[in-house]
Amino acid sequence: MKQFLSPTDLGDLHQAFREALEIKNDRYHYVEAGRNKTLLMIFFNNSLRTRLSTQKAAMNLGMNVIVLDVNQGAWKLETERGVIMDGDKSEHLLEAIPVMGCYCDLIGVRSFARFDNRADDYNEHILQQFIRYSGRPVFSMESATVHPLQAFADYITIEEHKRTQRPKVVLTWAPHPKALPQAVPNSFAEWMVAANYDVVVVQPEGYELDERFTRGATVMYNQDEALSGADFVYAKNWSAYREPNYGQILSKDMNWTITSQKMALTNNAFFMHCLPVRRNMIVTDEVIESPQSLVIPEAANREISATVVLKRMLDALNK
Amino acid sequence: MKQFLSPTDLGDLHQAFREALEIKNDRYHYVEAGRNKTLLMIFFNNSLRTRLSTQKAAMNLGMNVIVLDVNQGAWKLETERGVIMDGDKSEHLLEAIPVMGCYCDLIGVRSFARFDNRADDYNEHILQQFIRYSGRPVFSMESATVHPLQAFADYITIEEHKRTQRPKVVLTWAPHPKALPQAVPNSFAEWMVAANYDVVVVQPEGYELDERFTRGATVMYNQDEALSGADFVYAKNWSAYREPNYGQILSKDMNWTITSQKMALTNNAFFMHCLPVRRNMIVTDEVIESPQSLVIPEAANREISATVVLKRMLDALNK
Amino acid sequence: MKQFLSPTDLGDLHQAFREALEIKNDRYHYVEAGRNKTLLMIFFNNSLRTRLSTQKAAMNLGMNVIVLDVNQGAWKLETERGVIMDGDKSEHLLEAIPVMGCYCDLIGVRSFARFDNRADDYNEHILQQFIRYSGRPVFSMESATVHPLQAFADYITIEEHKRTQRPKVVLTWAPHPKALPQAVPNSFAEWMVAANYDVVVVQPEGYELDERFTRGATVMYNQDEALSGADFVYAKNWSAYREPNYGQILSKDMNWTITSQKMALTNNAFFMHCLPVRRNMIVTDEVIESPQSLVIPEAANREISATVVLKRMLDALNK
Repeated sequence: MKQFLSPTDLGDLHQAFREALEIKNDRYHYVEAGRNKTLLMIFFNNSLRTRLSTQKAAMNLGMNVIVLDVNQGAWKLETERGVIMDGDKSEHLLEAIPVMGCYCDLIGVRSFARFDNRADDYNEHILQQFIRYSGRPVFSMESATVHPLQAFADYITIEEHKRTQRPKVVLTWAPHPKALPQAVPNSFAEWMVAANYDVVVVQPEGYELDERFTRGATVMYNQDEALSGADFVYAKNWSAYREPNYGQILSKDMNWTITSQKMALTNNAFFMHCLPVRRNMIVTDEVIESPQSLVIPEAANREISATVVLKRMLDALNK
Repeated sequence: MKQFLSPTDLGDLHQAFREALEIKNDRYHYVEAGRNKTLLMIFFNNSLRTRLSTQKAAMNLGMNVIVLDVNQGAWKLETERGVIMDGDKSEHLLEAIPVMGCYCDLIGVRSFARFDNRADDYNEHILQQFIRYSGRPVFSMESATVHPLQAFADYITIEEHKRTQRPKVVLTWAPHPKALPQAVPNSFAEWMVAANYDVVVVQPEGYELDERFTRGATVMYNQDEALSGADFVYAKNWSAYREPNYGQILSKDMNWTITSQKMALTNNAFFMHCLPVRRNMIVTDEVIESPQSLVIPEAANREISATVVLKRMLDALNK
Repeated sequence: MKQFLSPTDLGDLHQAFREALEIKNDRYHYVEAGRNKTLLMIFFNNSLRTRLSTQKAAMNLGMNVIVLDVNQGAWKLETERGVIMDGDKSEHLLEAIPVMGCYCDLIGVRSFARFDNRADDYNEHILQQFIRYSGRPVFSMESATVHPLQAFADYITIEEHKRTQRPKVVLTWAPHPKALPQAVPNSFAEWMVAANYDVVVVQPEGYELDERFTRGATVMYNQDEALSGADFVYAKNWSAYREPNYGQILSKDMNWTITSQKMALTNNAFFMHCLPVRRNMIVTDEVIESPQSLVIPEAANREISATVVLKRMLDALNK
């Protein structure tokens, strides 16, 4: 595995789930697999879960880990070519990336959407430069449009908790004070469809996601109707994808907050969210603290999904 | 050992001192004890000695270490319940803490007093939430009211240097330009009393510490009188504990600075301070550089106290 | 080896090159050499290559590594003696340095020239305090006047690529928007002379380097003339060394930028730069992306030079 952005990079999801269970059962089973291999984690943006769970995953595999915060303790990088670099950026990614590749075996990159330009974000400009120029296998630790380690952990969590072969999984938009990227809902929709679940995506008008990710899901606009009979409710805020409103907030409608009344419409659904979550915006205290809430098990599975992915990448290195 | 805040968590201090000497004699003696165990160190505030010495202690035990700076490279956390989270805090401790617990085996927390509200500080609001919600053994790396790793290191240092069975140990207030927490003097007084030394605490009127920590010590207001016959002089600044002045500076009286003249009143006492120290405010250059100064050996014993504590916590995990 | 600042600390450079090749051939050959030894890397200034390559080098040797960013997550340090410390600096280097030495076996220090005072910079005020007070072997990770890990990597790179026994190596000044230290050109000149190459240093009037570093090199002022017949072109900006202009920018003359036209004057020379480089200020896109550009192999050799240096220091510890 040379890159990790989408479910197709993993191949058969059932096989990946079996590997996840194997690691969950004995986290250090492959502690020799990463001996004398180094993971470089590069953060262009903040992180809690990804930072901790990916480090833990690498340690499960006996790897060395180097963490680099690019806007803290390191340079601001120029990303365009042909520029006379007389401003505040003292290094070009075209030098910085191959150099980073020299000192490690695998690279994880966190680089959020910037909302300057949808095409730049949706081309995964920064991540793709790492893939092209680093000379190393690269995985997304949430990039501009995808968050596959999260979606893989969500998939593991649903497989562990589902009560029917093909559960109804509802991804619903919810309000938030700031403009957020589409990375989490994009990947969640994409992975749920790849898992062959009954997938519904529901949002207010204007918040439709890129069809590349929602193809195969039912797209709706009435939250109550969507929640009916749901087995899993995945709440998440995102900003508008469609032009000319890309990256903008079109609504903060608190009627979309997930409450106990909303959950009563479902098939006693489990509640999910990738975290961090704004309580009483996205979801009430009552729902997130209920026995049906899976937010902590989901987060715990981030260690597992990352361990499976790193193990696959190490295996490919050794071939 | 499920938590570490006070000398009672360690039990018999003489036994703890013997373990300290054993580790000091061979720091890597238990390098297998922490194999495939992960320490998470969470800093809500800056640190030098604690950051380095605790990492070193974990490495002595062969542990993996993850360091998280919560206000650098990670989120600002909401700590209250029931808040509509539409401000600058994007995550609640009630999610963040259990998640952090998922990715590690032991947790150290640095979280200073905020001085907003004495009750919140003296309830150890943040540390206690980690104890309640993380699902992991938790130790203070200086929290709102205590700094037990420091006080344990101070105890080791005094045991190593004492010339009588029950030395006279004087904790004296000294001036400082900023308002400081009471954590270090609280723990120092508590541990010295627990060690059954002859303990004197001396400070200007209004600077009396919480009696929970000084019970068993002699409380005085005349520094010269207190220093008479002292075997160990521990200087430290702290802000007022008593209401309505909690967290305030009541005096910057430079007559309380520890000078050679002051040290001449003692029984050729050793000088101690937890560091960092403001030279020529707390203590003169001359005293801190004298052969009687123990500030560096104290700091060196921070590695030892932390190794003993982590070793105890690892032993409890494996039971 | 108790310190590493100059080529004389390494002794015979040919022998050092042989050790470099041995490690390059099998990076983990000495993975047991650093078992239970701890490297402390202290950064007073930003770093990318040095941070990553030195960590990797320590991991090659099986060492534990602690990274400390002094102005991020730790204190601002007082460096003068006799000051009444009532300002924003809460700790003195005279306490902080010995304490840091307590928790590690080797210390690397990054501390750039401040340009306040040439004598302070050229006395290597901060680095020398670490050498005097830490009690540990200390190496420069670029200090005020030298960058020996870079120059050693440059030497390795030239030995690997040279086509004649004694190549002509030209160090040329080039324009830059900000005032930069002389550390890289100082060390480069010093090491190239020590390697007994035919060394030319060329710069505009007023940019002459300290003769302590350029003694043995030919100093010129005409770039075209200097480049004639060059086997290696090492471009670098630096600010003025000579008083009364120390630390100042005297020229931003873009005629000194290394272009294909300039490279055509050479003996099909290799292009070198320590990175980070300002493209189209120091060198054009065309030259840095050409097959003659060695900027990435140079950077890759930073891991090798650091591994050799750490290995030497570990060997000295174990004697």
